[in-house]
Amino acid sequence: MGRGGFSARIRSFLAAAQSVAGLSAATVAAAAAALAAAPPANAKAAYPEENNHKTLRTRLCIIGSGPAAHTAAIYAARSELKPVLFEGWMANDVAAGGQLTTTSDVENFPGFPDGISGLDLTDRFRSQSIKFGTQILTETATAVDFSTRPFKIASDSTTVLADAVIVATGAVARRLKFPGADEFWNRGVSACAVCDGAAPLFRNRPIAVVGGGDSAMEEANFLAKYGSKVYIIHRRGSFRASKIMQKRAMANPKIEVVWNSEVEEAYGSEKGVLRGLKLRSAATGETSELEVSGLFFAIGHEPATGFLRGKLMLDEEGYIVTKNGSTETSVNGVFAAGDVQDKKYRQAITAAGTGCIAALDAEHYLREAASQGAAESELPAGDEY
Amino acid sequence: MGRGGFSARIRSFLAAAQSVAGLSAATVAAAAAALAAAPPANAKAAYPEENNHKTLRTRLCIIGSGPAAHTAAIYAARSELKPVLFEGWMANDVAAGGQLTTTSDVENFPGFPDGISGLDLTDRFRSQSIKFGTQILTETATAVDFSTRPFKIASDSTTVLADAVIVATGAVARRLKFPGADEFWNRGVSACAVCDGAAPLFRNRPIAVVGGGDSAMEEANFLAKYGSKVYIIHRRGSFRASKIMQKRAMANPKIEVVWNSEVEEAYGSEKGVLRGLKLRSAATGETSELEVSGLFFAIGHEPATGFLRGKLMLDEEGYIVTKNGSTETSVNGVFAAGDVQDKKYRQAITAAGTGCIAALDAEHYLREAASQGAAESELPAGDEY
Repeated sequence: MGRGGFSARIRSFLAAAQSVAGLSAATVAAAAAALAAAPPANAKAAYPEENNHKTLRTRLCIIGSGPAAHTAAIYAARSELKPVLFEGWMANDVAAGGQLTTTSDVENFPGFPDGISGLDLTDRFRSQSIKFGTQILTETATAVDFSTRPFKIASDSTTVLADAVIVATGAVARRLKFPGADEFWNRGVSACAVCDGAAPLFRNRPIAVVGGGDSAMEEANFLAKYGSKVYIIHRRGSFRASKIMQKRAMANPKIEVVWNSEVEEAYGSEKGVLRGLKLRSAATGETSELEVSGLFFAIGHEPATGFLRGKLMLDEEGYIVTKNGSTETSVNGVFAAGDVQDKKYRQAITAAGTGCIAALDAEHYLREAASQGAAESELPAGDEY
Repeated sequence: MGRGGFSARIRSFLAAAQSVAGLSAATVAAAAAALAAAPPANAKAAYPEENNHKTLRTRLCIIGSGPAAHTAAIYAARSELKPVLFEGWMANDVAAGGQLTTTSDVENFPGFPDGISGLDLTDRFRSQSIKFGTQILTETATAVDFSTRPFKIASDSTTVLADAVIVATGAVARRLKFPGADEFWNRGVSACAVCDGAAPLFRNRPIAVVGGGDSAMEEANFLAKYGSKVYIIHRRGSFRASKIMQKRAMANPKIEVVWNSEVEEAYGSEKGVLRGLKLRSAATGETSELEVSGLFFAIGHEPATGFLRGKLMLDEEGYIVTKNGSTETSVNGVFAAGDVQDKKYRQAITAAGTGCIAALDAEHYLREAASQGAAESELPAGDEY
């Protein structure tokens, strides 16, 4: 079990075939840890000069692997910018392709009237990037230096020097905190129904979903295929989900809504897996118990900007701040696209649109900079790299 | 011959099968004329009360047929807004589907690594809209009234009353004016290589393209399949086209660039078709002759907002003005998406992105308005409709 479990298996096969640099399990763990941690105090440590660390020079570096990153790559590659793209290796604990890989059936991406699985769609994006000449690194970017030119973007095994950067690292699902939430994480508690719903643990057992938006409705419907019953636990008395999604959830006889309630605690069985929840009514303050084998969070997202703190202007929620109607960030030459800078619309098609805009903005920036000689600066003297 | 000729033939077959209302040739001509003309002085005339004129009531009306319009429709239909969409009938002299229908091979719409024809892609958008419940009118919206609620949008045969409107009418190719330009229009002079390039008139004959952007490069390459030679006539000494497109054009042995030159006049043969051009050098002022059987304009676009003059705030070039980072126009409840509000990026994928945003913005507006009771207002008293 675990987020990205299903997609990770497919991706890991792809990655093994396509990976530019071999990565040990330790490297992956280190990358994940670095991403989760605050930016390293010692910048030197972020750019290790060990044996196999290599340096690449490019005009444009793209960080991300979803519709924004790949649309940017398609446009940039067609503009002959020869982009280098860090797609990550289980970056943010999600397989390359991002959140789309956890969506079973994408119905609202225009051009696919019969729907398409998230995995198939992201594979198509990736193939299209590669076709036009994008170089993909299956490594997680864990450190950036935007204070020098060229900019530096580094994973554990590669440092990329780039004249311009597009950040499209997306966002990841949010989790609630209460006693037992961590203890039973991956032992009944999850944030990805598509990844984990089919696990034997949940078969013909009651399951709970926390949330009130479209994804809560979608996850509940999905989980109803497996569980004996699906409870949607919502802290308010009405959903913010779209009507069509609400209707679908309500029409499912296995789904029941527990209104005005919050999870207070999760408790387990003798085997150490989730057995039930203590709920508290927001209206009366009374507590009750709900026996479930699964608990799925569907309560929103967090931008993947941990490695950018102090490097780019972020808002109070951690989203990258862009200038009105453009993809420009607080650093000239660094652009942002997709969910990492969009907390409002967060759709695959809007992310793709801003990815295109970021590529066109970056291309324009580079052309302007080149005409001023600024982007053609040589590597700094010294042996740091 | 004529713009949209090829696609029009396919579309007209589709339209015959799918048209909601039968349209006479006179109706089509009237619609085209109304769009080209200034807004009617007598508003009454724009909403004829004749025999077959019908009225539809909807929450959301969408005007347009390209990626922006259909992405908006897909999202709105999935939100159960039951949108009514005016796709037009040769609106702006282009088949339903808009500019994309005049593109032979779309390589940069993410999700199609092997490329897809513009016609196939627009058919897919349209199918997806219909699948989720969009009602499509194959009629051209020629008059709007945004001063009353519900809003009124009318073709020659239908008036739609809507609580919210999304305008996604796109833009059309621009033409140059010089002696002979009109005389030989559709007799050698065109603005759509994909539509007209295959005509016998051009086979193994020299052809000229005017312009210096990506579309000029693309059209030149396309026309080289048919003509004996293709001249790109450009008034400057360098192109603004992307490098990849320039390179492709330059690598084609049939293509030759005529730099720093403008067309001064077009002249014809005894048969009344184009035979050649008089060019003037921008550098020396000298004139020269160039024998060609075809002249294709590839010099930019004009937004299809003739019917909106005085109804919505437009900029000096006629583009709809939207509020920063949103699709809101100067009229509350009217939204704009796609090329009709974007003179900068103008890509299918960016148009689709803003179409999605417009649908989400409109859905939000309607939900807010409904909660205040404003959007539920009844038809005004009287017999105007």
